[in-house]
Amino acid sequence: MEKLAETQYPIHGLLRRRWSPRAFSSRPVEPDKLRSLWEAARWAPSSYNEQPWSFIVATKDDEAEYARLLSCLVEGNIQWAQHAPVLMVSVARLSFEEDGKPNRHAFHDVGQAVSNLIVQATALGLVVHQMAGIFPDKIRELYGIPEGYEAVAGIALGYPGDPEILPERLRQRELAPRSRKPIRDFVFAGRWGRPSPIVTGDGS
Amino acid sequence: MEKLAETQYPIHGLLRRRWSPRAFSSRPVEPDKLRSLWEAARWAPSSYNEQPWSFIVATKDDEAEYARLLSCLVEGNIQWAQHAPVLMVSVARLSFEEDGKPNRHAFHDVGQAVSNLIVQATALGLVVHQMAGIFPDKIRELYGIPEGYEAVAGIALGYPGDPEILPERLRQRELAPRSRKPIRDFVFAGRWGRPSPIVTGDGS
Repeated sequence: MEKLAETQYPIHGLLRRRWSPRAFSSRPVEPDKLRSLWEAARWAPSSYNEQPWSFIVATKDDEAEYARLLSCLVEGNIQWAQHAPVLMVSVARLSFEEDGKPNRHAFHDVGQAVSNLIVQATALGLVVHQMAGIFPDKIRELYGIPEGYEAVAGIALGYPGDPEILPERLRQRELAPRSRKPIRDFVFAGRWGRPSPIVTGDGS
Repeated sequence: MEKLAETQYPIHGLLRRRWSPRAFSSRPVEPDKLRSLWEAARWAPSSYNEQPWSFIVATKDDEAEYARLLSCLVEGNIQWAQHAPVLMVSVARLSFEEDGKPNRHAFHDVGQAVSNLIVQATALGLVVHQMAGIFPDKIRELYGIPEGYEAVAGIALGYPGDPEILPERLRQRELAPRSRKPIRDFVFAGRWGRPSPIVTGDGS
């Protein structure tokens, strides 16, 4: 199932095709492809090239590890994410390695690494659904995450599946149209809230 | 000038080509292309589809506005960013619109929107350099950014330029090899710090 973004201006197909489905195929993800995903994340930009991202990963090949990672998600996510062949949690290092000062962009840069991972996933025919609904404290305890690091988000990943496998309520969300704010609501010039003339048509 | 990532595993050309140069051409960026950049940002994923990102933009077409945005960067960035035809600052909304609760992923999701913008920029032959070195309080004051929002990062954008225009110290950095941690240092399984067998070769 595809769900192309209905764009007002043209964007690259990899960005247009990306979306966050909840229906995953049971088909396993090839280890070669997983390595390419992390390689993509690896080359993301970061403040002072700190690379504050880490990932904890579990695949269905290892039932016990998979169950452990699944248990770190809130119930509403377990419901559908339990069918994804690959689960991950992203983790941020909150201070700079060099001087221990707080890294204001730790979460920001983890987000950029995951974005790269998603572009690569899309290029390989995979789909990704990120989850805010995780238990960071439980993850810290279960995996021994040290002070100064923090679990950021869950990531479910695999090949796209049939929406029919989803419970009714989630199937409806899967099939609903995608929506976003118009650009003029978030691109400003000169003053907060004043749309840039480039997006209102006054700037040619 | 290209500076391809030296990858251990294959990644998509758009990710491999992306880097953060400091040398920009004086060639202006076409408004059509800028609109596509924001459209790309628009379709990024976000927690609860909150879309917590905004951008303040200035181009060299408007000298006064450009100078104002440039003044929000630290001196070390002004030195090279002053030649970029387009400057932006990303801004995060820190709480959810619906219920006012803190959005733990506000910076994370702004990062993902900017990542999308960068992929689109790369596809259009543009280069982007993000900057942590900005003055968030000055930006708040100059642009009237309300409480509950926060300036996140500076963004310099344009066509690639000749490294020869850079001062010696920056030219050396421009030409230096790119580096990243190996994947086994940030992809773990079972326990924090234990590399996944998929990346050590034990998981085929």
